[in-house]
Amino acid sequence: MIIMIKIYGKNCINEAIRANNEIQVVYLLNDNKKKDMNFINMLNDKKIKYEHINKEKMDKIFPSGHQGYGAYRNDYKLYSDDDLDQIVTKASRILILDGIMDPHNLGAILRSVDAFGVDLVILPKNRSCYITETVAHVSTGAIEYCKIMYVNSLSTITSRLKEFGFWICGTDAKGNIKACDIDKSLKLAVIIGSEGFGMSKTLLKASDYLITIPMIGHVNSLNASVSCAIVLHDLMKTD
Amino acid sequence: MIIMIKIYGKNCINEAIRANNEIQVVYLLNDNKKKDMNFINMLNDKKIKYEHINKEKMDKIFPSGHQGYGAYRNDYKLYSDDDLDQIVTKASRILILDGIMDPHNLGAILRSVDAFGVDLVILPKNRSCYITETVAHVSTGAIEYCKIMYVNSLSTITSRLKEFGFWICGTDAKGNIKACDIDKSLKLAVIIGSEGFGMSKTLLKASDYLITIPMIGHVNSLNASVSCAIVLHDLMKTD
Repeated sequence: MIIMIKIYGKNCINEAIRANNEIQVVYLLNDNKKKDMNFINMLNDKKIKYEHINKEKMDKIFPSGHQGYGAYRNDYKLYSDDDLDQIVTKASRILILDGIMDPHNLGAILRSVDAFGVDLVILPKNRSCYITETVAHVSTGAIEYCKIMYVNSLSTITSRLKEFGFWICGTDAKGNIKACDIDKSLKLAVIIGSEGFGMSKTLLKASDYLITIPMIGHVNSLNASVSCAIVLHDLMKTD
Repeated sequence: MIIMIKIYGKNCINEAIRANNEIQVVYLLNDNKKKDMNFINMLNDKKIKYEHINKEKMDKIFPSGHQGYGAYRNDYKLYSDDDLDQIVTKASRILILDGIMDPHNLGAILRSVDAFGVDLVILPKNRSCYITETVAHVSTGAIEYCKIMYVNSLSTITSRLKEFGFWICGTDAKGNIKACDIDKSLKLAVIIGSEGFGMSKTLLKASDYLITIPMIGHVNSLNASVSCAIVLHDLMKTD
């Protein structure tokens, strides 16, 4: 049985086609029939099934924000503990998300994951947001290029990553190093905690570095996806 | 006549009280009566009027996300062209938003504005998001510490800022300098364009620097609030 997921928004569908073409069928709003011949020609070229439907149907199948473009796509391939060894040998940047429950945050984070060259995103099976239609949509298609792994235990995983030569970079308001001061030639696994509660104590202890983002304001808390983007940007491999 | 704005969420209301106490009345969910005596004691200490209401009323007055905390606050003081001279003489970091229409983006940007010490945010009267309840909520109270100015023309404003010794830092995918390579001792005015269309051509031409964020992914576009956070973080005054 093939499990499918709805994706919507022109960027999302474009990237899904460009990345791997796992689209089953595309739905277009009647109004887009003449307006977007380039897109339709591309679907014809790639032999992707499509159908024009009216606004009522479109709104019924897809959430708001579809812009007149929707599709059914084979569900994303997700990885598990068993795949770690194989993926990690070729990786130099890993992101661990400790308690990110909000699909908007996860979607936004995946944009940074793609933009700043992160090879693998690891989440715990419990206390995590799953990959939903919203996550895919907010990622504006970046999800197509992300390797995502759900694991049983983050503390087991960090131990294994250390064996593979990774340095564990926790993030915490009480941290003592700026991301830009970390040696970029190292293999790095960055941990981002939840906005409300931060990282778990076990992972704080497991960290080789504790990264902090200097701030001089009054409120001094950033959205998890913003913190994540700043740290991944500063740690991006430049060679 | 006093114009009021609804604010909601515990952080927002806490910050509004801490910053300037322009609250008219606080509404608390009945259920919070015993749970949050610290908050109620604080309201009593500061002589702030409050009322306990039931969930039905709360949901009617305030949008979802209120967490049982809502308030009416005097509307935010906004600045205009006439106030520029007075504010700018004491400023060293200014953010110009060219075409940010989405309240979630603006709210998220205000968190970075506070966190990274931006003295003034300038938006054009046309093609801008206004300060709404959603903006205030998404800013998680950071808005209380932001000076926000709506002006007639961004190109007039950039000329005036240059007279005040500011260096105009545009941001563009085709830029040629990283934010971290700009001299932080300068007075800097950063321009962030809209996610879809970027900065206007006039402002591109007016820019002394054109900042780019290096990316190595496939999608290579970041959310406007994420780009903004990365640039403001890299340009934060450190002395």
